[in-house]
Amino acid sequence: MTMFELDPRLAADTENIGMLGLSRVLLMRDARYPWLILVPAQPNLVEISDLSAADQTLLMTEITAVGEALADLYQPEKINTGALGNIVRQLHVHIVARNTGDPAWPGPVWGHSAAVAYDEAALQTRLQEIKKTLGIA
Amino acid sequence: MTMFELDPRLAADTENIGMLGLSRVLLMRDARYPWLILVPAQPNLVEISDLSAADQTLLMTEITAVGEALADLYQPEKINTGALGNIVRQLHVHIVARNTGDPAWPGPVWGHSAAVAYDEAALQTRLQEIKKTLGIA
Repeated sequence: MTMFELDPRLAADTENIGMLGLSRVLLMRDARYPWLILVPAQPNLVEISDLSAADQTLLMTEITAVGEALADLYQPEKINTGALGNIVRQLHVHIVARNTGDPAWPGPVWGHSAAVAYDEAALQTRLQEIKKTLGIA
Repeated sequence: MTMFELDPRLAADTENIGMLGLSRVLLMRDARYPWLILVPAQPNLVEISDLSAADQTLLMTEITAVGEALADLYQPEKINTGALGNIVRQLHVHIVARNTGDPAWPGPVWGHSAAVAYDEAALQTRLQEIKKTLGIA
């Protein structure tokens, strides 16, 4: 039996927030954007269609919940949602809070420019507020 | 009562393919990528969370169906799915067939470079094969 293992590149670029029903929630280590990633915690997923129909619905529920959490916390102008996977093939969905004047605006954040590290206090604050809003212990 | 009207910018950049249960299906006029757009045909939608829970599920079903249609027709290396809306706010979901060596690879197609027009015969072929695969009359 194959177990789910987080892709090492995703692990290297993110902080772990916790689990929702289907997906692991990660915070991208880029202080410029509130940027979360959902990774459905099943082995061998590449495309959304690799999930069962029920899990596709659950993924959509989690995408919406995470987008609403970012909207509630940070009042962004727009939520951007994307499942690309051209570089990291393990199925993962980006959910990013965007604003006029952010570094990549109005283009996509993916591939735009190198991440800017959080300072440790800001990172801990962000992790805690997101956990609390998503109801993750 | 407000009626659904397709954003004029989306209309200008695309060819109409037809309706699925929830969404209008559009083909981006860019011969470099098989690139479809789903636009849920309800007024005043901006974020996915503006849809009812049932319609969010239906949208996910349509995203998967369109991605699988592109995969069946064109055998791409990866399907890219994205709902950005930084420029056009009307809720719309891009589903793009991507391959190593395509102009934007491995970055996102959005904002990368100007579209390349289809020649008319290739456009008609593409529209017909997509309609047939999606079961749109």
